[in-house]
Amino acid sequence: MSKPVRKLKIAVSGLGRMGARHANHFLHRTPKAELVAAFTPDQKEVAWAREHLEPWGVKIYTDFDELLKHEGLEAVCVATVTTAHAPQTIKAIEAGLHVLCEKPLSTELAICQQVLETAARHPKQKVMCGFSRRFDSSYVAAYTQALTGSIGRPTILRSQTCDKYDPSGFFVEYAQFSGGIFVDCNIHDIDLALWFFSAESKGKVLPKVKSVVAFGVTALEPDLAKYGDVDNGVGVVEFYDGQIAYFYSSRMNPPGQHDMTEIIGTKGKLSVNANPTVGLLESHLSTGIHRDIPQNYYERFEHAFVEEARQFTDAVLEDKQVPIDLTSSMEAVRIGVALQDSLRNEKKIFFDRDGKRVDEVGQARAKL
Amino acid sequence: MSKPVRKLKIAVSGLGRMGARHANHFLHRTPKAELVAAFTPDQKEVAWAREHLEPWGVKIYTDFDELLKHEGLEAVCVATVTTAHAPQTIKAIEAGLHVLCEKPLSTELAICQQVLETAARHPKQKVMCGFSRRFDSSYVAAYTQALTGSIGRPTILRSQTCDKYDPSGFFVEYAQFSGGIFVDCNIHDIDLALWFFSAESKGKVLPKVKSVVAFGVTALEPDLAKYGDVDNGVGVVEFYDGQIAYFYSSRMNPPGQHDMTEIIGTKGKLSVNANPTVGLLESHLSTGIHRDIPQNYYERFEHAFVEEARQFTDAVLEDKQVPIDLTSSMEAVRIGVALQDSLRNEKKIFFDRDGKRVDEVGQARAKL
Amino acid sequence: MSKPVRKLKIAVSGLGRMGARHANHFLHRTPKAELVAAFTPDQKEVAWAREHLEPWGVKIYTDFDELLKHEGLEAVCVATVTTAHAPQTIKAIEAGLHVLCEKPLSTELAICQQVLETAARHPKQKVMCGFSRRFDSSYVAAYTQALTGSIGRPTILRSQTCDKYDPSGFFVEYAQFSGGIFVDCNIHDIDLALWFFSAESKGKVLPKVKSVVAFGVTALEPDLAKYGDVDNGVGVVEFYDGQIAYFYSSRMNPPGQHDMTEIIGTKGKLSVNANPTVGLLESHLSTGIHRDIPQNYYERFEHAFVEEARQFTDAVLEDKQVPIDLTSSMEAVRIGVALQDSLRNEKKIFFDRDGKRVDEVGQARAKL
Amino acid sequence: MSKPVRKLKIAVSGLGRMGARHANHFLHRTPKAELVAAFTPDQKEVAWAREHLEPWGVKIYTDFDELLKHEGLEAVCVATVTTAHAPQTIKAIEAGLHVLCEKPLSTELAICQQVLETAARHPKQKVMCGFSRRFDSSYVAAYTQALTGSIGRPTILRSQTCDKYDPSGFFVEYAQFSGGIFVDCNIHDIDLALWFFSAESKGKVLPKVKSVVAFGVTALEPDLAKYGDVDNGVGVVEFYDGQIAYFYSSRMNPPGQHDMTEIIGTKGKLSVNANPTVGLLESHLSTGIHRDIPQNYYERFEHAFVEEARQFTDAVLEDKQVPIDLTSSMEAVRIGVALQDSLRNEKKIFFDRDGKRVDEVGQARAKL
Repeated sequence: MSKPVRKLKIAVSGLGRMGARHANHFLHRTPKAELVAAFTPDQKEVAWAREHLEPWGVKIYTDFDELLKHEGLEAVCVATVTTAHAPQTIKAIEAGLHVLCEKPLSTELAICQQVLETAARHPKQKVMCGFSRRFDSSYVAAYTQALTGSIGRPTILRSQTCDKYDPSGFFVEYAQFSGGIFVDCNIHDIDLALWFFSAESKGKVLPKVKSVVAFGVTALEPDLAKYGDVDNGVGVVEFYDGQIAYFYSSRMNPPGQHDMTEIIGTKGKLSVNANPTVGLLESHLSTGIHRDIPQNYYERFEHAFVEEARQFTDAVLEDKQVPIDLTSSMEAVRIGVALQDSLRNEKKIFFDRDGKRVDEVGQARAKL
Repeated sequence: MSKPVRKLKIAVSGLGRMGARHANHFLHRTPKAELVAAFTPDQKEVAWAREHLEPWGVKIYTDFDELLKHEGLEAVCVATVTTAHAPQTIKAIEAGLHVLCEKPLSTELAICQQVLETAARHPKQKVMCGFSRRFDSSYVAAYTQALTGSIGRPTILRSQTCDKYDPSGFFVEYAQFSGGIFVDCNIHDIDLALWFFSAESKGKVLPKVKSVVAFGVTALEPDLAKYGDVDNGVGVVEFYDGQIAYFYSSRMNPPGQHDMTEIIGTKGKLSVNANPTVGLLESHLSTGIHRDIPQNYYERFEHAFVEEARQFTDAVLEDKQVPIDLTSSMEAVRIGVALQDSLRNEKKIFFDRDGKRVDEVGQARAKL
Repeated sequence: MSKPVRKLKIAVSGLGRMGARHANHFLHRTPKAELVAAFTPDQKEVAWAREHLEPWGVKIYTDFDELLKHEGLEAVCVATVTTAHAPQTIKAIEAGLHVLCEKPLSTELAICQQVLETAARHPKQKVMCGFSRRFDSSYVAAYTQALTGSIGRPTILRSQTCDKYDPSGFFVEYAQFSGGIFVDCNIHDIDLALWFFSAESKGKVLPKVKSVVAFGVTALEPDLAKYGDVDNGVGVVEFYDGQIAYFYSSRMNPPGQHDMTEIIGTKGKLSVNANPTVGLLESHLSTGIHRDIPQNYYERFEHAFVEEARQFTDAVLEDKQVPIDLTSSMEAVRIGVALQDSLRNEKKIFFDRDGKRVDEVGQARAKL
Repeated sequence: MSKPVRKLKIAVSGLGRMGARHANHFLHRTPKAELVAAFTPDQKEVAWAREHLEPWGVKIYTDFDELLKHEGLEAVCVATVTTAHAPQTIKAIEAGLHVLCEKPLSTELAICQQVLETAARHPKQKVMCGFSRRFDSSYVAAYTQALTGSIGRPTILRSQTCDKYDPSGFFVEYAQFSGGIFVDCNIHDIDLALWFFSAESKGKVLPKVKSVVAFGVTALEPDLAKYGDVDNGVGVVEFYDGQIAYFYSSRMNPPGQHDMTEIIGTKGKLSVNANPTVGLLESHLSTGIHRDIPQNYYERFEHAFVEEARQFTDAVLEDKQVPIDLTSSMEAVRIGVALQDSLRNEKKIFFDRDGKRVDEVGQARAKL
């Protein structure tokens, strides 16, 4: 008789939109993980969990500290509101657990720094921030191809995150906590820039930001202005050593979610999702040819989230390096915050090669 | 405390290419199913099962009759060689089990008939033949749209099954058991015709075949001729009441698997996979723009197979009708066999409205 | 001072839909041609010509025989009703003129034969039947690529001609003269099969038909039945030496004109217009992504018609072989007529290698 | 007998790459124009003209002033080197001629201003700067659709001009006269932004620039740096009243020319050329699916240039307003120059609502 499979005992914290999905993924779609517990302070979410998780043997907690004490618990997936990401991650690390944390670690750099320091003090535990696109098969195929050198040196990266317009205006109130459109939406695109621009070193050396600039408008939701936010943003990030990334984010894409990326190298370009579609169906009607696109981020990236759960689980069980380094996840926040600042103060922002903001181009240049 | 989830105890018979996949799906990707056992007479497959199934608590059998006696077993998924499909299905039904059988039931009509009769004698058990495309999200979206009437009456259906060329010539020897290209490959396309052409009656009334004709060539594998088979086939099926389906199958598609279908109605057309691709990546290189397509049937339809397992499981657990009727699955074989006959004898073959072959067009017409 | 350019003095016969377009092409878009005259017996067309042709120096005739005597006339483009194609072509040849004749030469084989015989008696004059798709840049690119051998031997050809539905029902009455859907629409697809399947010999050896079969329905226009015609047709043509072409034609495509072709070789496939569009615009709206396709045959093939005029003109001026051989154009009619016969009598039709119809498969086989 | 057609007697100045094309268009593809003369000081171009233009009755000049005195000359198309655009245009206007001038009017604003002033003093003469994309059928379809309001208010415009990499490095030396990549390449994209962002007023009110910023790298041609230029540029232009345009230009696109534009409105998006292709052919080979794209700007926009010639000719003959206003063409230069400045001095540049540069964001803001 073969030895039974060892499974990772994991809990999910937060059972909102993304938390419930993570719970499902660990419960049903990550064979080597066993979802043993879940935490939520929200009664509506507790009711959902009683119906959908408890019958599968998952214990429900309404106190995060109690969750951490769940017997045999090895890891936790933090998927609460953004402001709780860092505190829960830190507590979980200190409780000896491995952590998969939803992005961003925090919208504040100093707090990101605390997470990194805590993780550094517990080097045996795996801590990863979940940038889902890195697990999407099309992005992985692009990265794999970039590594072969077929497109030469990645030099320009264009990436966008465009959400379907939500007429409920939910995202307006959400803007006061989200860190703004560049931190909330474009952070994925920023992470892609860091990923592809560090491909030369296989991820060991992150590109260094030289300057950032951002612009935005409130085309449909003027109330965003009160939180220093916009519903359409354009940003450019210039890196030292000749690389540029430029981004677009929008809250008003009518047909659905359209996230796309171009990685432009000295010998070729990789294009991910230039031609969006939700499947392989096209309708030829008297009004022309029609196709649908994904309606939301999850519809586009569902399989990437599942893959993320699997790879995190494998990294823990096999004591391997997690696929995304925390330093890079913090750098993404730093760039997102700088873009949001540039949007708000209408200035181009400069950095020296050590990552410190400098006031003028002259100062930055002196460092060259 | 909530009531624990009830899971369907299922076994898989056959652990070859497709059997191993079915085992994985029931083991890891069908939350409400529990893979409790597996059967294979093949020592190589047994070794695989010891490594990949046994550690998850799956009992391995090398005797099919023993498998059927596995305690608590409720259902079996038959995924052995084609010639064993029907005998195992019949045995399993008679042992009181629900059965999901890989397509085709058999390459012989009389044997299909036996399966149907056996199933009819056990009306409380679910028996379904697995036509995977009916569970593919793009085909489901097309069917759903056809039901709304947006394309009017489905009138013409074009469908193709094109495999990547396998230079090993594996499929040549396989041809002696497969029933031929129309029974082995185009049976999926035939099933789609039956599905869409019975949409008007929500599947209750199958369209009646009036005539069939088939053509073929052995472009790359002349040895296929010894089994009355070809590597490229073209067939047309004419139905009474003004509907036509035409098919193409090929064993020599260089880039990979390209299965596509058009459902042409009086008001519009639905096209599934006219523009094949394996993901959302395109490469812009000095040689032009490139994309890849799926390399095999499973790469194209993996999610459909998983969905098939889930829906079969749900149908059993909730005592619902299975999504595909056995009558239709047998009719697909009948049409496939007739096409293969037409290929071999180079004649157009006619049927009367009762489904009997008639020798001449005159005879068929007299029945109108 | 350079020698002035010599221009071909040409006339257009017939100023209906296509005739007026040909007149425009020779007048304005064929630099080396000079449209000197035009003929039409129709008063409405005469009025159009007075406004659109006469101011450019084009003489208008209402008597075809007078047209032929126009001083200095060298060539005529015959674009009248189908029944006049052959008589006018013959007269023009006998009057010493070069002739570009719209397809088909005739819907009757015996009459096609007369044209060929007349042309053979005047070997110095150029006579060409205008199969426009051979001048379309995408088809030319496909043919050029086929000639390189990159797809191996062209083995299967699929081609369709689908017109936008015309609710006026114009095409119903037109059916009594058109020769039927296979002669009127699919003749283009048949011509493509002859073109690609003779690529091996650079057009010198046409493939030999072994059998044909056709099917059809009257989905929207039952009145077509009185002319032995249908609004949707499916046909298969089997050639000796292992090549098959299969066709679809429709009068009811809602979004517009969708003509497409696949040339499937032993090493690859060339696909022309699998992904139809009228330009490069897509609209992303709340109802999904939309694009338009050409509304009619001319919108799709306008540039091909212009190129046809240019190449015919060049062939005459430079005394070169015309790009399309008359034998091939007559063969296309023969196949189209056989398909239409098969549609009407519901039989598969066989030919021996000399192109004679034989009654049974046995007879055809005996010739092998 | 109808009155003969009146044709516009036009000359082309400059017979380099674009000049020769313009000459061809007016000679052979603009029915109502008559190319009567051409000027070039270059002996190689003179030889070309003797062979290709003179036989059609075109008189060749090697002195521009002599050209202007050609009897009966009504208009001139200026297609010389950029530095000669403005002087020749001014001379031609003063000689009483209508002028179609290649873009840009000049790379210097003061000189553009002289052209506008000269044109203003001769209000009866038509003067237009040829921004070819405005005549491309896909862009025209997009603009037409934008006018209907279907995408709401155009708010964000993304546009790129990417040339196929020319390993000869021709464009390096050319950079010293071109005004830089933003003036030479992105000027088309800037013009599109002005066009679409003034659609609300049907072109009467141009959007007002608030700030611009640009970035660039020399990925393949470091020598460009000596002319303050780059081979990849990213620029953003912010307009007062809530509109943003962002641009990308590249000299290193391997497969060919890829110019594309997205016009993003509050209710939808129009995308032009997201899915580039040179025609309707795709090749399905063992290496995947392949397609080609246009190899250069002319291959992409040939028909637009022809349409430009036709519309200019019609505007003159019918004394209508030319389709592109000179003010807008000068504004495009102003923005291009500002972007190039921003690239060179690494600063974000601000404008007040009167179009004057202001030093700081504060100053610009004070004007709000």
